[in-house]
Amino acid sequence: MAFSLQPWMARHLRQVETALDALLSPHAPPGSAWAAPTDLNNAMRYAVLDGGKRLRPLLVLAAFEAVRGVPASPSDAAPLRAACAVELIHAYSLVHDDMPCMDNDVLRRGKPTVHVQFGQAGALLAGDALQTLAFEVLTPMDGSVDVDVQARLCAILARASGRVGMAGGQAIDLASVGLALTEDSLRHMHQLKTGALLQASVMMGAACGSGSKAQLHALEAFGQAIGLAFQVVDDVLDVTADSATLGKTAGKDADNDKPTYVALMGLERSRAYAATLAEQAHAALQSSGLPDTSALAALADMVIHRVH
Amino acid sequence: MAFSLQPWMARHLRQVETALDALLSPHAPPGSAWAAPTDLNNAMRYAVLDGGKRLRPLLVLAAFEAVRGVPASPSDAAPLRAACAVELIHAYSLVHDDMPCMDNDVLRRGKPTVHVQFGQAGALLAGDALQTLAFEVLTPMDGSVDVDVQARLCAILARASGRVGMAGGQAIDLASVGLALTEDSLRHMHQLKTGALLQASVMMGAACGSGSKAQLHALEAFGQAIGLAFQVVDDVLDVTADSATLGKTAGKDADNDKPTYVALMGLERSRAYAATLAEQAHAALQSSGLPDTSALAALADMVIHRVH
Repeated sequence: MAFSLQPWMARHLRQVETALDALLSPHAPPGSAWAAPTDLNNAMRYAVLDGGKRLRPLLVLAAFEAVRGVPASPSDAAPLRAACAVELIHAYSLVHDDMPCMDNDVLRRGKPTVHVQFGQAGALLAGDALQTLAFEVLTPMDGSVDVDVQARLCAILARASGRVGMAGGQAIDLASVGLALTEDSLRHMHQLKTGALLQASVMMGAACGSGSKAQLHALEAFGQAIGLAFQVVDDVLDVTADSATLGKTAGKDADNDKPTYVALMGLERSRAYAATLAEQAHAALQSSGLPDTSALAALADMVIHRVH
Repeated sequence: MAFSLQPWMARHLRQVETALDALLSPHAPPGSAWAAPTDLNNAMRYAVLDGGKRLRPLLVLAAFEAVRGVPASPSDAAPLRAACAVELIHAYSLVHDDMPCMDNDVLRRGKPTVHVQFGQAGALLAGDALQTLAFEVLTPMDGSVDVDVQARLCAILARASGRVGMAGGQAIDLASVGLALTEDSLRHMHQLKTGALLQASVMMGAACGSGSKAQLHALEAFGQAIGLAFQVVDDVLDVTADSATLGKTAGKDADNDKPTYVALMGLERSRAYAATLAEQAHAALQSSGLPDTSALAALADMVIHRVH
């Protein structure tokens, strides 16, 4: 029977949304005498809930299922926690990136950005606390996740998010405004800024199963290809879509004189490059030896063909 | 033989400074194909190195030695990594707190603050990446730290730093400007804002050893007492010391109309309260049953009697 992405996504998105909502509950978290301060918790909820495509959590769950060979259920604590953690990191990065000292953006997912709604100090703190929460989520103290998996998930996520991952990519981006980057430099920036966390999503899902070295290697190549493809498509959409469709300000990269694939290689070559990367992603899955990679393959197609 | 804090501190500070310097090396970290971007790494180094009393790392190492019963050596990977991780979290919090949207401070440890030196976007990213680095440091992939210790350290640090820890305390502080807090509310704010991370330092050190439940319980009480004492003394120093001695702007809490112990209970009662907390800290150590808590006791005295 052919795999159908929509029902798979609907089922998994429900799990992720429910879990994120519970993690950001206004009540005291397990083991804490206190609840988070109301203002802070509200800003964190605003940044995370009711928005976002949840691509990273879906990649975590799809990679877990590919390695494990069975669908993830809400009782699989590790992959669901990994899925939430990577989304919390993604959400924190958006909150901080939108701030006036960075991209100074006022619209995100069709809503005012966090600093517009909660003030700059509120946005700074909410982003900080969302990052911390990701590592709290990965280290439950109730025995529901093996400690070796906890340590492995923290290790992958920290490396993908930090100075040689997402934050490093942001720093290069910041330093590159107005510069003409080579294709190599542009690729390096994007591998850090966006690619590392997308690739980490795949690897975190796999780390919750128990894949062979060869399988992990293939998934790593898959993650790298879709990570880069995502950014190429992002650059294409920045010039071809309107703000209403994107839910964020269109054309801002060009306006901000930021280096993009479209600026470097033009629209048509950028589209062709995205298609090549999609082929590489599919080839990696086929070489993995994993019995069922339908969900991962479908997510890869979604990354390429998305319109926002 | 009586314990002498100075040589103990000198020896351990050397270990910590060497380790922090190595962690922030301009070269690619283990397992990474890339080094951190130069601007980002420079801002991170500036925020962390050549400054700071390193109280939190010293507490980690002293607690480890109290539980383990032998001095920490540079080959003890876990306590040294825990010591660095907690200092990285502390450093990130200072970078973000000093930003214009928060305390807007231009002087820290006698030097221009990070946002003055590297711009606001640079400070935002450096703080973000320092937080991530803390969790990277706790999860080495070279087998040098047991995975159960890695998971435990991440769990303690994340809970102490986030929404029901340091970031939560910051949020309450932000919301309390100009308000007359009760002593309970003020204590709650400080337990989160400063106390949680100081207490976590003690508990992380203990987690690197293998203390009994009763020992850990006593150390928890010790950590709570010195955490609160630290803040009471901080409030006292804010009105009694000058900026040159503090290495930061004196009198800024009063200027910013922030609730402090001195504002709540006056200078003399604040000093007496700090002394009472010091006694509680010593009593907790005595009740711990640990054979040698000299370093922890000496650090507690240092917290109370410090002049900056």
